Amino acid sequence: MIQTITVKTRGREAFYDITSRVQEAVAQSGVEEGICLVFCPHTTAAVTLNENWDRTVQDDLCLGLGSLAPERRDYQHLEGNSPAHLKSSLLGASQVVPVSEGRVVLGKWQGLYLVEFDGPRERRVVVKVVEG
Amino acid sequence: MIQTITVKTRGREAFYDITSRVQEAVAQSGVEEGICLVFCPHTTAAVTLNENWDRTVQDDLCLGLGSLAPERRDYQHLEGNSPAHLKSSLLGASQVVPVSEGRVVLGKWQGLYLVEFDGPRERRVVVKVVEG
Amino acid sequence: MIQTITVKTRGREAFYDITSRVQEAVAQSGVEEGICLVFCPHTTAAVTLNENWDRTVQDDLCLGLGSLAPERRDYQHLEGNSPAHLKSSLLGASQVVPVSEGRVVLGKWQGLYLVEFDGPRERRVVVKVVEG
Repeated sequence: MIQTITVKTRGREAFYDITSRVQEAVAQSGVEEGICLVFCPHTTAAVTLNENWDRTVQDDLCLGLGSLAPERRDYQHLEGNSPAHLKSSLLGASQVVPVSEGRVVLGKWQGLYLVEFDGPRERRVVVKVVEG
Repeated sequence: MIQTITVKTRGREAFYDITSRVQEAVAQSGVEEGICLVFCPHTTAAVTLNENWDRTVQDDLCLGLGSLAPERRDYQHLEGNSPAHLKSSLLGASQVVPVSEGRVVLGKWQGLYLVEFDGPRERRVVVKVVEG
Repeated sequence: MIQTITVKTRGREAFYDITSRVQEAVAQSGVEEGICLVFCPHTTAAVTLNENWDRTVQDDLCLGLGSLAPERRDYQHLEGNSPAHLKSSLLGASQVVPVSEGRVVLGKWQGLYLVEFDGPRERRVVVKVVEG
């Protein structure tokens, strides 16, 4: 069973906390012990784990990534979103997290985020839980 | 069953689309539903997902990564390929993707790439499919 | 079965080789064929694969990451460790590696590392092996 979470992103760049929706997907899978793949089927967005408490961390991450992957005049891709493609590969299209007692086991300060780099768009996140 | 894909890289840096070869490996595994690990056993190359349509995205990614991880005089590693080691850890040695109906399920614009950062070499990519 | 490795980090930033401890965890799991998730439940540390031979690579990676994610006056997060949060998302909280004949199968020059970006602290790494 593959489950899909849909996120309507609003601005050009932002973090969207999908932790509770991933927990729901794991509960629906019926798997008690195993691992969970949280996969983003887009090339200008990413899935990452980071702090779930102080929202300024998300803003700081966007700021830092902006300096890492700025616009450049020598980029050739005509859509003009090469920085978003680079950020997607840097953070990665997916995360794999442990599942125990029917729940995703994250650290106390960790949340799972869809990160939009070229919004606003409607994005999907695929959740696949494997028993083991 | 672990399967191995071999890629002979040509230049110092380039993307190699391995999507269809990963699809073949999944078909040979006989697994219909599960996840697929695409793993690079090298420390100066990586596996990433990104745009499969406009080839300029790959060139732009190489350009952007070059600015992120330039040569430096203060690097100590005597082989002189520390930027390639850094790019390998930034993009990551592996990707995990969902498998459904016997096929890797990627987004419409996503391809799986071996990324060479210190070629030309003969590189291997390990594919392991897990049912679930 | 989820297994936990504990690492007491010493300096602010460093790599800790956890390869042999992950091998022990895989042996204890009893799984012969499958995949192994090595997961870091912290937001200012990471798990990565990189060279296991010449230690200067680790120092060069810390140096390169320091330039990628420097301190900034415009970061808002009051703990002052936003660069560590960024490095954690760039390298990633986890790695997934193949398991065959009861052992993690890495490349000849690959080691698994916990990377501390905001130490010293006591860190945990979760190991979960899935058969398949």
